[in-house]
Amino acid sequence: MSLTISKRGGQMPESPIRKLVPYAEAAKARGIQVFHLNIGQPDIETPEAAVQAVKNYSSKIVEYSHSAGNESYRRKLAENYKRAGIDVDYTDIIITTGGSEAIIFGFMACCDAGDEIIIPEPLYANYNSFAIEGGISIVPVASSIDNGFALPPVTDFEKLITSRTKAIVICNPNNPTGYLYSREEMETLKEIILKHNLYLFSDEAYREFCYDGDHFSAMNLKGAENNVVLVDTISKRYSACGARIGALVTKNKELYNTVMKFAQARLSPPTFGQVLGEAATELPADYFEATKEEYRKRRDTLVSRLQKMEGVVCPTPGGAFYAMAKLPIEDAEDFCQWLLESFSHNGKTVMIAPAPGFYATRGLGRNEVRLAYVLNSDSINEAMDVLEEALKVYKR
Amino acid sequence: MSLTISKRGGQMPESPIRKLVPYAEAAKARGIQVFHLNIGQPDIETPEAAVQAVKNYSSKIVEYSHSAGNESYRRKLAENYKRAGIDVDYTDIIITTGGSEAIIFGFMACCDAGDEIIIPEPLYANYNSFAIEGGISIVPVASSIDNGFALPPVTDFEKLITSRTKAIVICNPNNPTGYLYSREEMETLKEIILKHNLYLFSDEAYREFCYDGDHFSAMNLKGAENNVVLVDTISKRYSACGARIGALVTKNKELYNTVMKFAQARLSPPTFGQVLGEAATELPADYFEATKEEYRKRRDTLVSRLQKMEGVVCPTPGGAFYAMAKLPIEDAEDFCQWLLESFSHNGKTVMIAPAPGFYATRGLGRNEVRLAYVLNSDSINEAMDVLEEALKVYKR
Repeated sequence: MSLTISKRGGQMPESPIRKLVPYAEAAKARGIQVFHLNIGQPDIETPEAAVQAVKNYSSKIVEYSHSAGNESYRRKLAENYKRAGIDVDYTDIIITTGGSEAIIFGFMACCDAGDEIIIPEPLYANYNSFAIEGGISIVPVASSIDNGFALPPVTDFEKLITSRTKAIVICNPNNPTGYLYSREEMETLKEIILKHNLYLFSDEAYREFCYDGDHFSAMNLKGAENNVVLVDTISKRYSACGARIGALVTKNKELYNTVMKFAQARLSPPTFGQVLGEAATELPADYFEATKEEYRKRRDTLVSRLQKMEGVVCPTPGGAFYAMAKLPIEDAEDFCQWLLESFSHNGKTVMIAPAPGFYATRGLGRNEVRLAYVLNSDSINEAMDVLEEALKVYKR
Repeated sequence: MSLTISKRGGQMPESPIRKLVPYAEAAKARGIQVFHLNIGQPDIETPEAAVQAVKNYSSKIVEYSHSAGNESYRRKLAENYKRAGIDVDYTDIIITTGGSEAIIFGFMACCDAGDEIIIPEPLYANYNSFAIEGGISIVPVASSIDNGFALPPVTDFEKLITSRTKAIVICNPNNPTGYLYSREEMETLKEIILKHNLYLFSDEAYREFCYDGDHFSAMNLKGAENNVVLVDTISKRYSACGARIGALVTKNKELYNTVMKFAQARLSPPTFGQVLGEAATELPADYFEATKEEYRKRRDTLVSRLQKMEGVVCPTPGGAFYAMAKLPIEDAEDFCQWLLESFSHNGKTVMIAPAPGFYATRGLGRNEVRLAYVLNSDSINEAMDVLEEALKVYKR
């Protein structure tokens, strides 16, 4: 017998992006400029008023907060939701350490080891990691780039529902596909969850980033109030990823009380991040307009360039700041590594994320990549020059 | 079939202290002053220089940090450990969201569902919660108030070791007992973990708070470097509980790399808390002296008062800021509730924590309570006046 790590520790996937980091670092060491379209770290400044609130922090002791988060913050956040057309009370909200913790708490409170959660794939890769922590199985239902990653048909979901199925998870608008679910698709999901008594986790991290239609929150599915769990975060909304502040919102009181026990065990969410989040609730109503316009411009630049490249398929994403593209290549992982390791165009290259890491089904997405449009339009254009040239040169 | 919560959600214990909160609130509503000796929230001010660093934060974007925490912080923290006689490199450190997350990550990386961890009881109640999240069984080994909660004999540990045992957890100095493990006891633990190939998790949250002897860190157990995992936090050290910054430290690279995968899934620890923690590493070496003297004084006040009360047994704790006391009562939960609900002395009462919530074995600690000496000596004296009077009046 010797010291061992756990099976779940072995199963935990490495980040699909981080594998490429050493190649990016080596490229930079060779003097090559790398355009980072690989991560969801926005380049937008965090609102000054929100950061200023942290600088104005005046308590002499940085104490634990309430395990559900400061009541003053929860009250203002509830008002914010109401202004966005989502009717929740502050007692429906638990402030979490990033959206990540909201997902973990939700999974843990609804599922035991061996239980199953259905998620349209491609999917946010960390859902899988959080499921592994709790011994939960992610059951993917395939969406396809060929119809822009629309919600799979009801029959595809129903084929996968077993007695162990506890929940469906969507991310809306979607990371990694940028797909914005329509009201009709949301109503379809409602039918499934009510018919089969499932929870619906709706990750709405990118709710404000919708470019071609209105966002329909799962919290507004009438009659499914007991089934819906909203997962939220200030990371992207206010470009405050490092604050580590999210929220779990549900009107299901049994679930709420159970999640509270997990929240109490870890004592409290971060104090300074809550101060930032609370101040952000008081930003003017038009705060997002400029940001949204900027992202819309970036999206249009990125997508129009991609759509003009020979052999590239890129559906126009309706929200978030990601686009998926099918490239005329066989192995995206090899291609993305090659871009960093062996290619440059006028001293520049581009880092993008191979799609297989976002699929739970092995073998899917092999010729797809995810591009995050988190750089300004000029940089995106330059990055697209690089990619266009690379696709002409790459031969494997 | 209907919506259900998970079994683990049902098993999650409610905080042993929080059950009493409504009674404390009701007492205050009746105009009674409540001395809070129930929680580990220090009343010491957070060092101004550390908070000032947060106020000086100058980045325009509150970005994700490295998943292991900012390198600049880890480097300074490693220097800090070295000054404290603990030889670690910054590459042995993963910054976590509070000590809580370090424990969860450690448990998850070492144990699968069904695996076992041995912990001397009474124990920090949240260890049990974190174990439940991962389906792990806490196996308690009893320590006793009659010998001041010293380390149980080796044979008591060995009786409990099975093929599923993966680790022993200690908290040193201990929460809730205040016991400070001697070097000899630490060497005994080393023999056990080496003989049986176990991990040793050493929670050293209160390392600086030792009053009668030197602290011996598990990291200094020569020859057990691969087995030891240090769990740390700035919460108590710098009275910065709300910063939510801890650390997992290990020289075992396989374990480190596994924990990193859990850390990557949740992206990063809180940015502002890291800024505070990094600034705190630069506090003068004598920073703790005044704080320690203050706590020593409080401890001496509390313990001498308790030891003079009829029928009360209170071993002198060597560290942390907790004391356990055996009271001449039958049911501590009833007594602690009664103190808030039905008793006052000159318009004052006291809130203390019933000990059964700190024992994993049902039925133990029924006539014991935990008192946190987180108030100044005058308040402690007043609180002891209340308790002394209460013990004369209480009849059940």
